[in-house]
Amino acid sequence: MKNYQKLTERFQQLHNYGHLLSIAGWDQATMMPAKGNEARANAMAELGGLCHRLATADEVNDWLQEAELEALNTDQKANLREIKRQIESAHALPEELVLAKSKAGSQCEHAWRQQREENDWAGFAKNLKEVVKLSREEAKLRAEKTGLSPYDALMDLYEPGMRSVEVDRLFGDLRTWLPDLIQTVQEQQKTQSIIQPQGPFSIEQQKQLGQYAMELLGFDFEAGRLDVSSHPFCGGVPEDVRLTTRYNTDSFAESMMGVIHETGHARYEQNLPKEWLAQPVGSARSMGIHESQSLFFEMQIARSRSFLSHMAPEITNVFGDQPAFEPENLYQFYTQVEPGFIRVDADEVTYPAHVMLRYEIERALIEGQAEVDDIPDLWQQKMQAYLGIDTTGNFKDGCMQDIHWTDGSFGYFPSYTLGAMYAAQWFHCMQQQINDVEYQIESGDLSQVSKWLNKNIWQQASFLTTPELVQQASGEALNPNYFRQHLENRYLKQVR
Amino acid sequence: MKNYQKLTERFQQLHNYGHLLSIAGWDQATMMPAKGNEARANAMAELGGLCHRLATADEVNDWLQEAELEALNTDQKANLREIKRQIESAHALPEELVLAKSKAGSQCEHAWRQQREENDWAGFAKNLKEVVKLSREEAKLRAEKTGLSPYDALMDLYEPGMRSVEVDRLFGDLRTWLPDLIQTVQEQQKTQSIIQPQGPFSIEQQKQLGQYAMELLGFDFEAGRLDVSSHPFCGGVPEDVRLTTRYNTDSFAESMMGVIHETGHARYEQNLPKEWLAQPVGSARSMGIHESQSLFFEMQIARSRSFLSHMAPEITNVFGDQPAFEPENLYQFYTQVEPGFIRVDADEVTYPAHVMLRYEIERALIEGQAEVDDIPDLWQQKMQAYLGIDTTGNFKDGCMQDIHWTDGSFGYFPSYTLGAMYAAQWFHCMQQQINDVEYQIESGDLSQVSKWLNKNIWQQASFLTTPELVQQASGEALNPNYFRQHLENRYLKQVR
Repeated sequence: MKNYQKLTERFQQLHNYGHLLSIAGWDQATMMPAKGNEARANAMAELGGLCHRLATADEVNDWLQEAELEALNTDQKANLREIKRQIESAHALPEELVLAKSKAGSQCEHAWRQQREENDWAGFAKNLKEVVKLSREEAKLRAEKTGLSPYDALMDLYEPGMRSVEVDRLFGDLRTWLPDLIQTVQEQQKTQSIIQPQGPFSIEQQKQLGQYAMELLGFDFEAGRLDVSSHPFCGGVPEDVRLTTRYNTDSFAESMMGVIHETGHARYEQNLPKEWLAQPVGSARSMGIHESQSLFFEMQIARSRSFLSHMAPEITNVFGDQPAFEPENLYQFYTQVEPGFIRVDADEVTYPAHVMLRYEIERALIEGQAEVDDIPDLWQQKMQAYLGIDTTGNFKDGCMQDIHWTDGSFGYFPSYTLGAMYAAQWFHCMQQQINDVEYQIESGDLSQVSKWLNKNIWQQASFLTTPELVQQASGEALNPNYFRQHLENRYLKQVR
Repeated sequence: MKNYQKLTERFQQLHNYGHLLSIAGWDQATMMPAKGNEARANAMAELGGLCHRLATADEVNDWLQEAELEALNTDQKANLREIKRQIESAHALPEELVLAKSKAGSQCEHAWRQQREENDWAGFAKNLKEVVKLSREEAKLRAEKTGLSPYDALMDLYEPGMRSVEVDRLFGDLRTWLPDLIQTVQEQQKTQSIIQPQGPFSIEQQKQLGQYAMELLGFDFEAGRLDVSSHPFCGGVPEDVRLTTRYNTDSFAESMMGVIHETGHARYEQNLPKEWLAQPVGSARSMGIHESQSLFFEMQIARSRSFLSHMAPEITNVFGDQPAFEPENLYQFYTQVEPGFIRVDADEVTYPAHVMLRYEIERALIEGQAEVDDIPDLWQQKMQAYLGIDTTGNFKDGCMQDIHWTDGSFGYFPSYTLGAMYAAQWFHCMQQQINDVEYQIESGDLSQVSKWLNKNIWQQASFLTTPELVQQASGEALNPNYFRQHLENRYLKQVR
C-alpha cells in the first residue's frame, strides 16, 4: 500500500491547493474589485500550473503503476480508479496548452461580460475562435489518448462514461414528443389567468426568503454562505460551500428558485463523505448527477404544489399579503410554459430544447463541421425549429448568453438535461419508497427525502460509476420515461 | 544579472502564492463560516509550507551568492538586500516549525473569537501555551542565526533594525512624562462639558460615513473594499486592499476612526510602486512605518479641529442634525482622554501605556521570565500601575482583547507607538513645508498631504532602510519630541 499511500498524499496536497483556488475563484466572482483582476489571474494561473505539474510528475506515474499491484480494499480500489482517471486526464495535455487555454478562456470570458451587454458578436467571435481552436486541440489530444471521438473525449470530463451515441438516443427520444408537449401545454395554459406578484421586492427581503428556503432544504449555514454574483453558481469547497444568486427588485421568483437550485448542488457537496473529501473518489460523481440534485430540488420539489403550499405563508410573511401568493396561483405562476430566449430563465418543459440546440452546435464546432462564424445562423435555425423563436441579430440573448463556451467548457451542456432525467427518476423512486412524500414536502419535512438522497447519491460520491450509481439507487438504468411522465403529469393535468 | 533575474522570478512566484494566502486569510476573518476553518487552515498551511520551501531551496542560496557578484543598479541592489533579508529569515526556521506555527496559530485564533466572547481564559490559555512554546522555539532559532536576543530577533521581523535597547530608550523617555500628562489632561478635561452623540446609528449609515471618509482620504474603491470583521484590519494585496471595521449601533465614533485608521494603511499599500510590487523591495518598509500611516491619518489628521470641521456637515448629513455634531463639540468629543480597558479604543494619550504593558509582557514571555499562566496577574498589575484600572477576572477586555498573540505575532506591539512617533514627525515636516496645511485639511483637500506621503513614504517602499527613510523624509532621525509636542499642543492647549 506504500505507493497508494503516496498517491493519496499527493491528492491531499492537490485538495488543499484546490481549496485556495476555489475560494479565490469565488472571491473573484463575488467580491473582487476591477483592478484586482490581473494580479488574481496571475496568482490563480501560477497555482493552477503547479497543480498540473504535481498531478503529472513522473513519480506519480510510477506510484500509479506500483499501486495497481498493491492489495487494496474496495474503497481504495475505487479511489485508485478515480485517481487514475484524473492523472490520465491531466497527462492528456501539455502544460503550454493548459496555460494557453486558461489564458484565452480568462480573456474571452472577461471581455464577454462587456461584449454581451453591447451585443458585440464580432468582438466576441474573435476571442471565441481562439478558445475553439485550443479546445479542438484539447479534444484531439484527449481523443488520441482515450480512443474516444473528440467531442466524447471532452464530454467525458463532465460525464465520465457518457457517449454522444447515448446522448443522441436520449435526445432523439425527446425530439419525438417534446415539441408536441410544448405546444399542447401552451394551448392549455392560454385559458389560465395568473395573478402576477406585485413588486418591488427589496434585496433584503429576497435574501431573507432565500435563506428561509435554504434552511428548510437543509443547507448548513455553518458550512457555507449565500452571496451575490452576476452569474449564479455553487462554488467554494465541500467544507464551506459558497452559493450565489442575483436579485432583481421587480421579481423575486428567479432569485427564490435560483437559490433553491444552487441549494441542491450545495447539499450534495455538504454531504459528501467527510473522510474521503481530499481524495478523487470523495468528490461528486459527475456534472449530470450534480445537476440531478439542483434540478431535483428546483423542479421535482420546489415547483410542486406541495412545496409551494408550504412556502406561500412565508412568502406572505416576507413581502406582505398579495392575491398572487395564494398557493394555487403560486403553483400556476411557477409552472408557466413559455418558449423564450434565455436558457437559465427557461421553464423545465422548454429547457431541454435549449440544451439540445447547444449540444448540436458545440459538437459540430469541436468535430469541425461548423465554425465560429456559423454559430449565429445555426442558432437562429434551431431556435426557430425547436421553439419557434427568431433570434436574428440578437446575439446578447442568443448565442452570447452563456458563459460555458467563453472558457472552453465544451461538452458540459448535455449534463443539464441528463440531470433533469436523473432527477425525475429519483423522485419516482421516492414516491415508491416513501409514504406520502408529497404530504411530507407540504408540511416542510424534508427529512425522508434528504435521507434517500444522502444514502443513494451524496454518500456514494464517486465510489461507483454513474451507471452503477443509477442502477443501485433506482433499480434500473437511466430511463428517460420518468422525465416524460413527470412533465406530462405536471403540465398536462392542471386540475388537482 | 542571470542569477539576480532568477531570484526575481522566484519572488514573483512567491508574490503570486502570497496573493492567494492573503485573500484566503481575509476571507477567513470576514466571510468564512465556522466549519470551514479546519480545511482552510490545512490549505493555508500547505501553501505556506511550499512558500517556505521555495524561499529556502538550495538553488536560491546559490543564486543569492552569485547575484551578489553581478552588476546591478541601485534599485536592484536594494531589492537584492531585501531578498537576502527574506531568505535568511526563512532559513532560520525548519519547515516543520513553520507548519506547526501556522496550524497552532490558526487554531488558537479561530477558537479565540468564541473564547473571548465567553471570557474563557482557561480554554484560551491552553491554545496560547502551544503558540508561545512554538514562538519561543522560533525566537531561539532566529536569535542563534542573527546574533540578536530572542525578543529582538522576533521584533526584527516587523521592525528591521529596531532593537529593544532602542525601544527601552524611547519608552523610557515616555515613562518620564506620559503619566503626568495623562493626569494633567484628565484634570483639565474635567471642566469640559461634551454633548454626547445620540444613537442608534444604523450599520448602513455608519458604512456610508466610513466610505465618505475613505473617499475623502483618497482610497481607491476600484482596488479595494470595506467589510466587517471582529478585529479590524487592513489585508488583501496591494492591487486589491481589503479593509475591515466593526460596527456598534450605539456609537459611530469608533467605526469612523477605525475606518480612517485602516485607510492610512490602505493608501500606503495602494501607492507602493506598481512596477516593484512582486519584489521584496516593493513592499512596505516596516510595521512601524505602516502604523505611521494609519496613525497619521487617524491621529494627526482625523482628530484635528480642521478635519472634524470638514466632517461635521457630512456626519449631520448621514445621521441627521444633533447638537453633538457641532464642530468644536466633535473635536472635544474626539480628543477626550480617559484610561480604559481596550487598546484599540484608547485615545492617543493613553495608547502608549497599552503598548508599553504589552511590550513588557511579551518580551518576558519570549525570554522565559514569564509564563502564559502569569499573564492575567501581570496584566492586572501593569494596568493598575499605568492607567489605574482594575482588570481582575475580566479577560475579555484584558489580556484576551488582542489578536496578535493568538497567532504568535510577538514583537509587533512596539510598532504602534513607534508609528505614533513617526506620524508626529511627518506632520511636523508638513507644517514646515506645506503652506496652510490645516486650512487645506479643513477644506477637504488632502492633495498636498498625499503628495508628501507619496513622495517620502509610499513610493519609497523598502528601497531605503528605516533610519535612511526617516532621515530622507524629515531631515533627522526618529525624534520622540515631536510626539510629545503634538500631545502637549493638542491636549494641554484646549483653547483655540
